[in-house]
Amino acid sequence: MIHDSGMPAPLARVVEMLASLPGIGPKTALRLGLNLLSRPASDSTALAESLAVLHEQVGFCETCGCFSERGLCHFCNDSRRDAHTVCLVEQPVDVLMMERGHGFRGLYHVLHGRLSPVDGVGPEQLHMAALDKRVAAGLKELILATSATVDGEATAHYLARRYDASGVKISRIARGVPEGSELEYLDEHTLSRALDQRVSWAVTARQR
Amino acid sequence: MIHDSGMPAPLARVVEMLASLPGIGPKTALRLGLNLLSRPASDSTALAESLAVLHEQVGFCETCGCFSERGLCHFCNDSRRDAHTVCLVEQPVDVLMMERGHGFRGLYHVLHGRLSPVDGVGPEQLHMAALDKRVAAGLKELILATSATVDGEATAHYLARRYDASGVKISRIARGVPEGSELEYLDEHTLSRALDQRVSWAVTARQR
Repeated sequence: MIHDSGMPAPLARVVEMLASLPGIGPKTALRLGLNLLSRPASDSTALAESLAVLHEQVGFCETCGCFSERGLCHFCNDSRRDAHTVCLVEQPVDVLMMERGHGFRGLYHVLHGRLSPVDGVGPEQLHMAALDKRVAAGLKELILATSATVDGEATAHYLARRYDASGVKISRIARGVPEGSELEYLDEHTLSRALDQRVSWAVTARQR
Repeated sequence: MIHDSGMPAPLARVVEMLASLPGIGPKTALRLGLNLLSRPASDSTALAESLAVLHEQVGFCETCGCFSERGLCHFCNDSRRDAHTVCLVEQPVDVLMMERGHGFRGLYHVLHGRLSPVDGVGPEQLHMAALDKRVAAGLKELILATSATVDGEATAHYLARRYDASGVKISRIARGVPEGSELEYLDEHTLSRALDQRVSWAVTARQR
């Protein structure tokens, strides 16, 4: 049927596969396919080659679960980073987001998910055995940066209990009003938490 | 620098190339790259394979300039279509759009552009020699479906003059109010043209 519309099968295949990506509908996929077709063949083949090796070349660090091209990731390999402070996140992409801030100099630990009893995700399904080892090896601080959702919060509570007796200092990333936001457009939960967890302004200023 | 953010180079390459597509910014490209990474490797390699052969397998019909996998396109090869009526469009994608209507049973001719003296595009730069041949071979009707822009209109005028003495009937697709639109949101040029080119309602009804 697609071929009957005059679209050649090779183009239809590209369009169909692009349309399977999130946020790309059939019209956008067609526009992208036609754009590739109107550009030099080398653009399509370069994209093809990069996609062909993507899974093969990108794996996960055996220690922390971050993206890694082989063995340890470049965080775990970086001796300038503080190996005693670990920021725990749910997904590898969260690490990329945290790094955009440029402020954190410790290491990471990626759970590759969060506890979700409804979906059958317990501690065994997560990258937690490696974390046990890291905590047992004498971690100083574990910063829980799971998401600010019900499941993310439950996961953070679980981890805080799990490592309660280990001597590691447990902290949770701050919740409140995001930078640059107008109060008018924020939800009531964010506002009430921001109010509850208000910090003494003078102390904050002194700490800076 | 991208590698310093913890993004492995193979992923960064995919993201960079996706971000070169129209309407795909760096954030969307990252989301697409991560989505591919989270799916089975076969999805990425299938997309890679379809892209690798795209240019090689998709060409243009030597007669009409439509997309074609080899030699004549499937319109020119279809003996059930009326070879005496040709609808002229600017781009191959316009043919796909016209075919969505399912009403036209003639053939097409793709100019692969439109006259644009400012950009140095004259008749020699367009797929016009093949059209001359088709007209000379005894075409009955040439429907000018160039775009409703200044350049598209100028191209249509040029073609009407070029084939004026050839005996072919020249027509232009209708201009007016698009289906389903509210007058309130249309521009004044469309409305004044729709008014100028009003058709006798009784005649239209009879023709149907």
